[in-house]
Amino acid sequence: MPVDRLSETFAALADPTRRAILARLALGETSVSELAEPFDMSLPAVSKHLKVLERAGLIVRGRAAQWRPCRLEPTPLKDVDGWIEQYRKFWEQSFNRLDAYLRELQATEKIRGPNKSK
Amino acid sequence: MPVDRLSETFAALADPTRRAILARLALGETSVSELAEPFDMSLPAVSKHLKVLERAGLIVRGRAAQWRPCRLEPTPLKDVDGWIEQYRKFWEQSFNRLDAYLRELQATEKIRGPNKSK
Repeated sequence: MPVDRLSETFAALADPTRRAILARLALGETSVSELAEPFDMSLPAVSKHLKVLERAGLIVRGRAAQWRPCRLEPTPLKDVDGWIEQYRKFWEQSFNRLDAYLRELQATEKIRGPNKSK
Repeated sequence: MPVDRLSETFAALADPTRRAILARLALGETSVSELAEPFDMSLPAVSKHLKVLERAGLIVRGRAAQWRPCRLEPTPLKDVDGWIEQYRKFWEQSFNRLDAYLRELQATEKIRGPNKSK
C-alpha cells in the first residue's frame, strides 16, 4: 500500500531532531552545515533527517552545487492543521466538561464546608 | 533515548487506519469488535493498532472484563495543535506572499495586455 501524504508527514514529524530542524528553518533558509552545528551530529546524520523531511514535502532544497540552502515548506503542516481541526471542538468540549465538573466540586465543597478528616 | 511524548503521538498518527479509528471514536465510545467491523480487519490486527493509540495516550480503554469500550482522549491532539501553532503564522504569511505575487502577475497582465504568442 503506498504511504499516504498525511501519514508521511506525521512519520517525518515523529522525531525531535527533525522538529528542531523545522524550528530552525522557520527563522529562515540555511545551509546543511549551518543546520548541523547546534545538533552535535555528523553531516551524514543531518542529511538523513533532511531527506526524510524533503520526501514528506516539509522542506525544499536549493539546487546550487556548493550551497544547497534548505527552506521550510509549510503546506504539509497546514494539512495537519486541517486534519486536527475536526478534533478541536472535541477537546474544547472535553475541557469545558472538566471545568464544569471542577465548578461543581467547588460548589459541593462550599455547601459541605472543608473536609476536616485527615 | 526515550521517545518523547510528541514523537509518540506523531508516530501513532502516521497510519490511516489509526486515524480512521480516532475519527470513529470522535463519534462516541465503542467496543473493539464494533470498531473492527468497517475496517475488514481481524480483531488482533485492530487490537495492535489500539495498543499503539493507547500507548500514545490517544485512547483510553475501559476495564470491564467482557466489554472494554474505547474512548478518544484528546489531550495529545491538543499538544500537537499547540506545537503546530508556531507555524500557523508562517504559512499564513507564505500564502499571503503567494496571493501578492498572483495580484502582481494580474496587474502586469493588464498593463501588457493578454499574451498573444502561442
